Amino acid sequence: MEYAKPAEIERESMAIIDRELRARGTAVPPEREAVVRRVIHTTADFEYAQTLRFTENAVERGRDALRGGVIVTDTNMALAGVSRAAASRLGCEAVCYMADEEVAAEAKRRGVTRAVISMERALREHPGAILAVGNAPTALLRIADAIEDGARPALVIGVPVGFVNVVESKERALAVCEDCGVPAIVAMGRKGGSTVAAAICNALLYAAAGLLDPAARG
Amino acid sequence: MEYAKPAEIERESMAIIDRELRARGTAVPPEREAVVRRVIHTTADFEYAQTLRFTENAVERGRDALRGGVIVTDTNMALAGVSRAAASRLGCEAVCYMADEEVAAEAKRRGVTRAVISMERALREHPGAILAVGNAPTALLRIADAIEDGARPALVIGVPVGFVNVVESKERALAVCEDCGVPAIVAMGRKGGSTVAAAICNALLYAAAGLLDPAARG
Repeated sequence: MEYAKPAEIERESMAIIDRELRARGTAVPPEREAVVRRVIHTTADFEYAQTLRFTENAVERGRDALRGGVIVTDTNMALAGVSRAAASRLGCEAVCYMADEEVAAEAKRRGVTRAVISMERALREHPGAILAVGNAPTALLRIADAIEDGARPALVIGVPVGFVNVVESKERALAVCEDCGVPAIVAMGRKGGSTVAAAICNALLYAAAGLLDPAARG
Repeated sequence: MEYAKPAEIERESMAIIDRELRARGTAVPPEREAVVRRVIHTTADFEYAQTLRFTENAVERGRDALRGGVIVTDTNMALAGVSRAAASRLGCEAVCYMADEEVAAEAKRRGVTRAVISMERALREHPGAILAVGNAPTALLRIADAIEDGARPALVIGVPVGFVNVVESKERALAVCEDCGVPAIVAMGRKGGSTVAAAICNALLYAAAGLLDPAARG
C-alpha cells in the first residue's frame, strides 16, 4: 500500500477537477479559477462552480487586502483551516472571536448569536478586514447591516451553510455588497461551511503570497 | 433585522431536514438518525443520507467508547469542530497530532503524509480510540492496514474528501472493518471533510452525554 505525498495528491486532484469542469462545459473566468478550483477540491462538490458569485474584481481586491491585512472568521474551525504559512508570508493576521468570553457574555445579554457580536467586534477593531463567514447567517446579516450603515470591509466571504436564513442572508449580503461597492465572494444556496470559507481564504492567500497552486506547478 | 438564537435556528433546521428526508422517502434507521441528521445539518447535502454506511451497531459501540475515551482526528480543523463541552462531560479527550514536529519530521524522512504518521501514533498511544479521518485518504488506508495487522480501534470514522485515492480508501476501510468486526461509519464516494468528521463525533458525543439533539428538545 502506497501512501503518496500530499503535494502529488493535490496536483493530481486539481488536474482531475480541471478535466471535469471542462467535461461539464463549465467556463470559469481565469481570475476566479483558483478560488473555484480550491473550493471544489475541499468539498468534491462541483455545484460550487455554479453557485459561487463574485462581485467585480473581488478576487483581485481581496488578494491585495491580504498583505499586512487581517482575516476574521466566524468559526474556530475556519480559522484552523486558514494556511498560517501563507498568511505569515504576507504579514497577514487571522483571528476568530467566537471563543472570547466577553463576546459570549454580550451575546447572552443581548439575546443574539456570538457570531453577531464577533462580527461587530471585527468591524470595530479591524474596519478594513477580510470577513469570512462559513457558518452563521446571522454574522453575514450583521455585516450587511453594517455595510449599509457605512462599514467598508476589504472583502466579504459569505459561505454560511444551513437551512434557516442562510439562502436569504447570502442574497442580501451580495446585493448590499454590490450596491455599496464592497468586494464579495458568496456561495448562493444552502451549501457552504467552515472548510469552504477557509478554502477561499487559502486560494487568495496562495495567490497573494506567490505560492503557486499545486496544479499550476505541474 | 432579527438575529435569532442558535438553539432556535438549529431546532428549526433539524425539523426541515426531517421533513425533507421524509419527502424524499429516505428511511434512516432510528439509531443512525442523529448522525445522518447532523451531517446533513453541517453540509446541507442530502446525498449523505445515501452515502453514509454503518457497520452493525457502529453508533452504539462508538457512543459507548466515548466515555473516558479518546478521539483522534486527522486535522486540526476537525479537532476544532469537536464539541469540547460534550467531550468534557464524558471525560473524553480529543487530540490531533498533525501539528506535531516529530510527526512532520518522521513523515518527511519516510516520504509519507503527516496524516499517516499521526494515525500510527494514535494507534500506538491510544489503541482503543475513536479515529476520525476527515481529510487524508492515506490516514484511512494506514488504519485499514493496521486493523488487518490486528489493531482494534473503538470506531473508525472514515470521511476523507477528494479525488485521489479517496473512494478506494473508504471502500477498503469499510471492508476491512466489516471483516475484522471494527465499528465504522464511512461516507462512500468523494465527499466528506473535516466538518463531516466533526459532525459525526458530535452526534455521538451529544447522544452519549445525554445532551438531546436540539430537534428532539423542541
